[in-house]
Amino acid sequence: MVSRELSICMIGFGNAGKEFCKMLLEKTEEIQNTYNFNVVVTAISTKTKGALFDSSGIDLNRALYEVETEGRFSQDNPQRIEGSALEIIKKSGADVLIELSTLSIKDGQPAISHIEEAIRNNMHVITANKGPIAWDYKRLKSLADEKGIFLLHETTVMDGAPIFNLVEKTLPGCVVLGFKGILNSTTNFIMEEMEAGSDYETALKEAQRRGFAEADPSMDIDGWDAAAKTAALINVLMDGEVNPMTIDTTGISGITIKDIEDAKKKGGKIKLLCEGYRENGTVKGRVYPSFVDNKDIFSNVDSTTSILSITTDLMGEICIVERNPEIRQTAYGVYSDLLTLIKELLK
Amino acid sequence: MVSRELSICMIGFGNAGKEFCKMLLEKTEEIQNTYNFNVVVTAISTKTKGALFDSSGIDLNRALYEVETEGRFSQDNPQRIEGSALEIIKKSGADVLIELSTLSIKDGQPAISHIEEAIRNNMHVITANKGPIAWDYKRLKSLADEKGIFLLHETTVMDGAPIFNLVEKTLPGCVVLGFKGILNSTTNFIMEEMEAGSDYETALKEAQRRGFAEADPSMDIDGWDAAAKTAALINVLMDGEVNPMTIDTTGISGITIKDIEDAKKKGGKIKLLCEGYRENGTVKGRVYPSFVDNKDIFSNVDSTTSILSITTDLMGEICIVERNPEIRQTAYGVYSDLLTLIKELLK
Repeated sequence: MVSRELSICMIGFGNAGKEFCKMLLEKTEEIQNTYNFNVVVTAISTKTKGALFDSSGIDLNRALYEVETEGRFSQDNPQRIEGSALEIIKKSGADVLIELSTLSIKDGQPAISHIEEAIRNNMHVITANKGPIAWDYKRLKSLADEKGIFLLHETTVMDGAPIFNLVEKTLPGCVVLGFKGILNSTTNFIMEEMEAGSDYETALKEAQRRGFAEADPSMDIDGWDAAAKTAALINVLMDGEVNPMTIDTTGISGITIKDIEDAKKKGGKIKLLCEGYRENGTVKGRVYPSFVDNKDIFSNVDSTTSILSITTDLMGEICIVERNPEIRQTAYGVYSDLLTLIKELLK
Repeated sequence: MVSRELSICMIGFGNAGKEFCKMLLEKTEEIQNTYNFNVVVTAISTKTKGALFDSSGIDLNRALYEVETEGRFSQDNPQRIEGSALEIIKKSGADVLIELSTLSIKDGQPAISHIEEAIRNNMHVITANKGPIAWDYKRLKSLADEKGIFLLHETTVMDGAPIFNLVEKTLPGCVVLGFKGILNSTTNFIMEEMEAGSDYETALKEAQRRGFAEADPSMDIDGWDAAAKTAALINVLMDGEVNPMTIDTTGISGITIKDIEDAKKKGGKIKLLCEGYRENGTVKGRVYPSFVDNKDIFSNVDSTTSILSITTDLMGEICIVERNPEIRQTAYGVYSDLLTLIKELLK
C-alpha cells in the first residue's frame, strides 16, 4: 500500500522543537507501520538560527547537529533558505504547521499571525505556544472550523499531560463548572525553596540554573505565565471569552519569607493558584497566591510538578498531576497532537 | 430525521444501577438532541428484586419508586417477568448489556457468563463489574472483537474517573511501563481513622455507616478488592495476563495502631498500595501496605479519594485523582461508556 505523506513546517527550533525532532526520528518507522503515514519535516523557520527548506524532507540529524554544535544552521547547509516565518509557512506548502515560536505574552504574537497564515494556506495547526489559545482561541478555532482544519494545542498547558483531550475525549456529556491548578513551575519552586530557608534571589538563580526559569523571570513572578494558562483553559474548557489581561492576576513578588513562615506555622504553604469559575453567568479567571493546608493534595505539588483539578457537573472533581516533567514531556505534547491529527485524517 | 433506538438490558439494580437510571432519565432528551439516539431500558434482571421486561421500554420512574418504597419490583407491575439473568439477557434482544451484578471476587462469576451470553447474542457490553476484566479480559475482549462488539469497562476502577480512556484516547503512542495507586476506600479510611486515634472496630463501623464498606469487609481488608482492580489495570493497560489470585496481595489486617504511630513519627502514613510493574519480561502486580512520606502526593489521598499514577515511556509520570466520589460518579462511569458506545456507533 502506498503510504500517505504528511509534511510539517516548524516555526521555532528551541529545546522543545529539537526534542520533538528527536522523538520524530525515533518514531518515524512506528508511525509508518501503524498508520501508513510518512511524516517529513519540510521547513523549519527560526528567529536566530536561520531557516531550512526541502520539499523532500529536511535532514533532521544534520539540523540537530548543527544547532547543537554551532548554535544555528550552518551557512553551507544546502537546505538553508532565507525568508520570514510568514514567507516560509506559505512557501512550505506543508500539511501541518507546528508553532513553537517564543511567546509574547502581551499579545500572543507573532504566533497568532503564523497560525492565521497556516489556516489561509489550508494547513492543520499544532501549537505548543499558549499565546494564540489564551488571546484569540475563539476566532482562530472558527477560522479553522470553516476550512475543516484541525487546531490542536494539548501542549499549551501542562506540557503533554492530557488536559484538553481529557475533557474532550474522556468526559463525554460533562460540563466543566470550574478548575483550580498549580501551573507555574518557577513560582512553585521559588516559594518551596524559600520555605526551606533560601532567600528569593538564591531560589531564582537555582531555578534558572535548572533551566525552567527564564533569564527575565518577570513573566513567571508577576503571574503572566499562569494567567495565560488560565485564559487558555477558560477559553477551551469553559467556553469563555477571556484573555490574559482580563484574568485577575496577582504574582508572588509581594510574598515575603515571613508570609511563608506564617503559613508554615499555620500548617500549610503558599501556592500560586490558577482558577476558572462561573459568576453571574460569565466565566472568570484569577491567579493569586493562596494558603494551602498541608492536608490538601495541592500542598504536595512540589518543584516542577503541576496539578489541575477540574470540577464537572456529572463526574464531580478529578485532578490530573504531571510529576517532574522534563523537556521530553513537552515534545510528547506535540507528538501526541501529531498522532491525534493522523488518526483524524484516517477517519 | 428518524432517530435510532438503542435498547439496554441491565443486570443488577443496586445503588449504581438506580443512580444510572436517574441520570439516564435526566439525559434522555439531551442524548436524543445531540446524537439522535433514543435510549430505552427494555429489561432489568436482579437477584432479589425481581425482573422487568418491556420491548417498548420499562417505566423507570415506576421501577425506581417501587424499589425505593418496597425494596423490590411490585408484584402488580405489569412489566414484571420471571426468568434467570441469562434467560432475560437472551430474551431481551437488547443492543447493550449493562452488567452491574454483585461481584464474586473469587472467580468473576456470574458476570462473566452474563457477558458471554450478551456477546453470543451480538449485544455490546458495558460492565461496571470489575470481575470479568480482572479474571477474563483477554478472552472476553477477543470474543467481542471477533463479533465487532464493544466491551467497555471504564467504571471498573475509580468509578467514572477516566483511567482506561485516559490511556487509550489521550496518550497515543505511549507504552505504560507501570502504575501505582491507592484504589480501595475502606482500607484507606480505616487507616486514616486509626491514625486519628480511633481503633480498628470503630473505624470499620464508621466506614460501614457511611456506606462504602460492605457488611462483610474482608474483601477490602484482605486486599481482594485492590487485587481485582490491580489485575484489571494490568490486563488492559499493560497487556498482561493476570488474575486476582496471581497478584501478590497483603491486606491491612496485620497493621497495628503501633505501626501507624511509628509511621507518623517517621513523618508519614501507611497506605495500601496497588502496583503493576514489569519484571524479567512479564507483567506482575502486588498489593501491600507501605510507608508513604508526608511530602508525597500519595499521603494526602484521604478518605474515599483515590489516585492512580501511571508511568509511560514518552510522557513520564502522570497521576489522576478522583476526589471524594459519591454514587453519582459510579453512575457517570456507566453513562460515559454509553456515550462512548453511541459515538462509536455513529462513526
